[in-house]
Amino acid sequence: MTIAGSRDQKLNRRLRLGMVGGGRGAFIGAVHRIAARLDDRWELSAGALSSDPERARLSGEDLLLPSDRIYGSFEEMAQREAAREDGIDAVAIVTPNHAHASAAEAFLKAGIHVICDKPLTTTREEAERLAELAKESGLIFAVTHNYTGYPLVRQARAMVAEGALGAIRVVQVEYAQDWLATRLEETGSKQAEWRTDPSRSGPAGAVGDIGTHAFNLAEFIVGDEVASLSAELHTFVEGRRLDDNAHMMLRFASGAKGMLWCSQVAAGLENGLRIRVYGAEAGLEWHQENPNVLLFSPLGEPPRIIRRNGYGASEVSRAASRIPGGHPEGYLEGFAQLYTDVAEQIGARIEGREPNPFSLQVPTVEHGVRGVRFIEAAVRSSQERAAWVDI
Amino acid sequence: MTIAGSRDQKLNRRLRLGMVGGGRGAFIGAVHRIAARLDDRWELSAGALSSDPERARLSGEDLLLPSDRIYGSFEEMAQREAAREDGIDAVAIVTPNHAHASAAEAFLKAGIHVICDKPLTTTREEAERLAELAKESGLIFAVTHNYTGYPLVRQARAMVAEGALGAIRVVQVEYAQDWLATRLEETGSKQAEWRTDPSRSGPAGAVGDIGTHAFNLAEFIVGDEVASLSAELHTFVEGRRLDDNAHMMLRFASGAKGMLWCSQVAAGLENGLRIRVYGAEAGLEWHQENPNVLLFSPLGEPPRIIRRNGYGASEVSRAASRIPGGHPEGYLEGFAQLYTDVAEQIGARIEGREPNPFSLQVPTVEHGVRGVRFIEAAVRSSQERAAWVDI
Amino acid sequence: MTIAGSRDQKLNRRLRLGMVGGGRGAFIGAVHRIAARLDDRWELSAGALSSDPERARLSGEDLLLPSDRIYGSFEEMAQREAAREDGIDAVAIVTPNHAHASAAEAFLKAGIHVICDKPLTTTREEAERLAELAKESGLIFAVTHNYTGYPLVRQARAMVAEGALGAIRVVQVEYAQDWLATRLEETGSKQAEWRTDPSRSGPAGAVGDIGTHAFNLAEFIVGDEVASLSAELHTFVEGRRLDDNAHMMLRFASGAKGMLWCSQVAAGLENGLRIRVYGAEAGLEWHQENPNVLLFSPLGEPPRIIRRNGYGASEVSRAASRIPGGHPEGYLEGFAQLYTDVAEQIGARIEGREPNPFSLQVPTVEHGVRGVRFIEAAVRSSQERAAWVDI
Amino acid sequence: MTIAGSRDQKLNRRLRLGMVGGGRGAFIGAVHRIAARLDDRWELSAGALSSDPERARLSGEDLLLPSDRIYGSFEEMAQREAAREDGIDAVAIVTPNHAHASAAEAFLKAGIHVICDKPLTTTREEAERLAELAKESGLIFAVTHNYTGYPLVRQARAMVAEGALGAIRVVQVEYAQDWLATRLEETGSKQAEWRTDPSRSGPAGAVGDIGTHAFNLAEFIVGDEVASLSAELHTFVEGRRLDDNAHMMLRFASGAKGMLWCSQVAAGLENGLRIRVYGAEAGLEWHQENPNVLLFSPLGEPPRIIRRNGYGASEVSRAASRIPGGHPEGYLEGFAQLYTDVAEQIGARIEGREPNPFSLQVPTVEHGVRGVRFIEAAVRSSQERAAWVDI
Repeated sequence: MTIAGSRDQKLNRRLRLGMVGGGRGAFIGAVHRIAARLDDRWELSAGALSSDPERARLSGEDLLLPSDRIYGSFEEMAQREAAREDGIDAVAIVTPNHAHASAAEAFLKAGIHVICDKPLTTTREEAERLAELAKESGLIFAVTHNYTGYPLVRQARAMVAEGALGAIRVVQVEYAQDWLATRLEETGSKQAEWRTDPSRSGPAGAVGDIGTHAFNLAEFIVGDEVASLSAELHTFVEGRRLDDNAHMMLRFASGAKGMLWCSQVAAGLENGLRIRVYGAEAGLEWHQENPNVLLFSPLGEPPRIIRRNGYGASEVSRAASRIPGGHPEGYLEGFAQLYTDVAEQIGARIEGREPNPFSLQVPTVEHGVRGVRFIEAAVRSSQERAAWVDI
Repeated sequence: MTIAGSRDQKLNRRLRLGMVGGGRGAFIGAVHRIAARLDDRWELSAGALSSDPERARLSGEDLLLPSDRIYGSFEEMAQREAAREDGIDAVAIVTPNHAHASAAEAFLKAGIHVICDKPLTTTREEAERLAELAKESGLIFAVTHNYTGYPLVRQARAMVAEGALGAIRVVQVEYAQDWLATRLEETGSKQAEWRTDPSRSGPAGAVGDIGTHAFNLAEFIVGDEVASLSAELHTFVEGRRLDDNAHMMLRFASGAKGMLWCSQVAAGLENGLRIRVYGAEAGLEWHQENPNVLLFSPLGEPPRIIRRNGYGASEVSRAASRIPGGHPEGYLEGFAQLYTDVAEQIGARIEGREPNPFSLQVPTVEHGVRGVRFIEAAVRSSQERAAWVDI
Repeated sequence: MTIAGSRDQKLNRRLRLGMVGGGRGAFIGAVHRIAARLDDRWELSAGALSSDPERARLSGEDLLLPSDRIYGSFEEMAQREAAREDGIDAVAIVTPNHAHASAAEAFLKAGIHVICDKPLTTTREEAERLAELAKESGLIFAVTHNYTGYPLVRQARAMVAEGALGAIRVVQVEYAQDWLATRLEETGSKQAEWRTDPSRSGPAGAVGDIGTHAFNLAEFIVGDEVASLSAELHTFVEGRRLDDNAHMMLRFASGAKGMLWCSQVAAGLENGLRIRVYGAEAGLEWHQENPNVLLFSPLGEPPRIIRRNGYGASEVSRAASRIPGGHPEGYLEGFAQLYTDVAEQIGARIEGREPNPFSLQVPTVEHGVRGVRFIEAAVRSSQERAAWVDI
Repeated sequence: MTIAGSRDQKLNRRLRLGMVGGGRGAFIGAVHRIAARLDDRWELSAGALSSDPERARLSGEDLLLPSDRIYGSFEEMAQREAAREDGIDAVAIVTPNHAHASAAEAFLKAGIHVICDKPLTTTREEAERLAELAKESGLIFAVTHNYTGYPLVRQARAMVAEGALGAIRVVQVEYAQDWLATRLEETGSKQAEWRTDPSRSGPAGAVGDIGTHAFNLAEFIVGDEVASLSAELHTFVEGRRLDDNAHMMLRFASGAKGMLWCSQVAAGLENGLRIRVYGAEAGLEWHQENPNVLLFSPLGEPPRIIRRNGYGASEVSRAASRIPGGHPEGYLEGFAQLYTDVAEQIGARIEGREPNPFSLQVPTVEHGVRGVRFIEAAVRSSQERAAWVDI
């Protein structure tokens, strides 16, 4: 058993991370920081942690940042860090959705690698523009579809790619929660407020917040693109301005058929991201709430329980695993894997070597663009009585 | 703990059952016979067990029927049994789908109660005609959507009806198997042959065979009708003439939204009939393969595991239960419940009393008609690029 | 798929069953009757259903027995049925424990096969005497350790016997309930009363009622005898006269080690009979409350989920199965299997042929004797500070 | 939702950690480092990472330690760090068992807080001596019975303490693995070698390595001491020098009864630490491999599924939780909690305030002593035919 954090440690320092957003009261920023820290490849070195300067300062102090690297705006941070000898290697953008594009652009232009939360942007135009900028810059641009960092998700993807399931026929994916089953956005919950506000969240609610994860997971594992979809979005909670439930039928490019359900009003569910894939020769099933188990069912044989780092775990999943099977890893470790992969990619560039190929599984700006296109297609389909819309 | 079979035993004899179909090599007929026998309300008294007279005779002998009550045709059976003093009280029709209508008509006309397998018929016209005939006759006409006999399915229905879930928002139902993942119909399997043959099965494959069960279960539990659906049917196994997978989006009359998935090519699944219902105040989940458990999740409280005849089991489910919680009941007991309910209804008529109201939950010809309409709507929607079609 | 009830139907009649005990208000008698009926090999023909003659008569009428075969005492029934041309083929003894011995003796002496509930008797002397009588008589004497009728229990036994697990090392077995967590016997519960009354139940409470099942299951699956045990019995509910919880360590003849826990005060458990067996090459796990699943874990490979009549189900389990995998069978079907096996054995004698070898798995009077010895050893060990006592 | 790492951050620096053991090739040291890092309260500042000086140096460089704080021996580290202004606040001792005592003593004498892996020592004398030293010193001495850091374990303990279960009757605890099912120690596995070597592991194998965790967990949750035990230790793998399986019966001081099973030869199990506790009014169940779920079964009510940071999660468990329910936390987070708790205790001393009371749940040297006494009692009982031995 090797521990991920001590592996391939050739670069004789930790990488330096800056952060945009994620100040006091934020949620996902703190998750990014744990994720960056967990495998000991990164240190948090700078931050523009809030658009409010005072809050930005206090948040930076909370995190023990040196005062000269606590910035009042991301523009300033991009400029000043780019100028430092010991400037940040990459920036993590963890603001609400509407602010991703401008921040990402600033850092790309400053020559700094980007790690951006999802959905990438709130419009397709912005997303495609970012993708172009990223391409031109040659920089790394990761999008934190973090569920792809789970070891058994990667194993599932590899199994499909190797043909263990045969030709894929059916994909059932869902992500259902209940935290917006009531009108939480009226109670002072910051998290609920911006996620149900079109000006900050974009044209979709549940579809953008969690539907994109389900969509990304399906494409990631199946290794195929959804060609078109037929969607019905609905808002169950009165007065809410964005969808809180969506049903979709999917057609994959290869001919596989699928369904996608996302909901934030499914009483009793917490983070019910679940995928099932059926091919001509086998099926598999994975559930995010119990992520250390992958059910693999070859046709005609008893289903097999593959456990993270246990019997039947493949090299690709072992490489994303820290501790032995039976000692569960969870959400933070899966998230950390993306940071570790980006560190590996950056480290390889610095050292002038090829990166570990497993590290290339981290989702990129292109996957971010797919997510934004998915959102637009879903919204449009729903407006047109669930007509089939290409993605 | 009382045992269902010894309950309300006022009628001083067992009821007499005839059977059409279900001879040697058949599957579902044998299930009906066990179901009829289990609670000791019925005895098998007559049969036209095959359309082949010799096979009908041998099959009748297998079952120890008296030779004068082994018939070569259902027409003969209907006529002769109607004329006997000790003639059958009801007939069970367990042939392939295409033969249901004519047999059912014959017995209705002979004044004999009918228990018919599903789907009711292969066309909507036949189905509606049967419903009218049944109505005119005043006879009992049960359709064996047997999953409605499971105690916790009945409890789920009652909980929805009593408002324990609040207004229903989302219904996720599925029935997936893998037994037709390969071209089994070419290997001599009688079961596979007729189910994939439009002339015997009707216009749909998986949708008719198991989709109807999922549909019926959803309407049964939710206590609401599906107003319209958008469907994509597909045949994955080359050369097969009927669908083996279908995806649907559902709109309920009340405004609830749903999804339905049925498949016979989902590798690793056996009889994966599963339903989840989410209301404004609670959710519930039930899975046929582990039918003694109902998960009930009131919003804001820890989910509760309700077990058949255990803590939290309600009167309606206890009434359909034979043995204490923790000693599992299964498919045959659920199926038996329908026979016991029909016996109760017939017994009440004979004795001139009101039937136990719980017995009125057994699906009727009207539910059979809904099933046939569902099939037609699904087929039509799929032909029209998943357009919304009313049921 | 064949249905058990229609299999090997060469004997041109159903077998005739008499019953001792099991009248109004009784529980296990009704279970025996369903079990006998389920596969259509038996008809209930006579009964001495209560030691109270009036209750015996009413109970017999409930069950539609002919009045001349409703008896006031088992002695009368044994004598009269033995004299009839169409007398019963076998008797089921379903009284409280203390009455088993005398009834069984009467029928053995009358030349009638016996099916007796467990524990066989309340003393070792009676048990051994019955075993001798049975042996001398040459009659069939089955003891309803009904859990041995579950298909996957039989498969587990066969897998151990075939060496799929390698040399057995560790056996963890338990049977825990909570129905006696309070002093139910003071509330008018007949079931609780006699089970906590030494004069009717014998020297042990939980150990006799359910511990014997766990013990039998372990020996059945492992195919080895427990050589000695170290036990601590305890009564948690104040005022109760028999143990309601017991912990034991077991030493098998082969060198395997085990633990047995039985309890009737384990809050939240219903019929938690569960066994895990670990050998040098594989492990397996089975749980009565979800009996259609057997977990098989070969060392170094992913665990496999074997489902009743599904992929990986062996011939021995298929033979004890009625319906396809995924349609659950339960407690009643497992119980029925014992009746079907006894019918097969009796039928073979009548027809002068060898019985289906699978039918010989039904527990006999010898297993009943082991159960009684187990009870005595456990009680004695506990009295001697958990000293090791041979069985 | 607050994130643990950013909570109560009043001390304006991270605490400084030294480490003894845990160099290249070690396993648990890397786990301790992740645990220390995860909540951002600690930085690794010094190390004597191997008893081999060259390996110590290389290991220190791997971890980016400054060269003057990479030590060749723990004695040197204790002395030099105690003398530094910026010396370590605490030391983590993660060597094989036999080396714990001398290292711990050195740091206590140097006035440095100690975090020591379990079992505390290999003899009771050493353990008790350490406890005395710790007491005299007034220093913090934590023992990493890391499973006590799981949020729902703490909730379980609190529920028992608050009387939610009523008087405790039965405790079933087990910790079973299969990684030593074959003679792994002959294949070059360092981990297997020292764990099966009495000179490094102490008098017990499985009992010391994992049995102590099970024992500690039981006492932690039940809030009661095991007064005496009856044990049977066994070695199944030929040639092995220490036990690889143990069965025990437990008597708690309060009168509760229990069983403990630990095994390293249970094919198919990975880290099967599981506990069930039954009281007069409710039961509960927790399993380390799915640690985000606690089953709570009040007598007479449906069992409730309490999920980490979900509905029904109590304040004590929320305080040990980082992210919302449904996003699983695992082993590393549970382990991290102990480091965070120790940081809180040290921080409170530095700042002259009371520590957060939840932080006082971290096991101390006294619990370490109990673990060593447990090992000795188990070994002695087994040598005396499972006689009851006081702990």
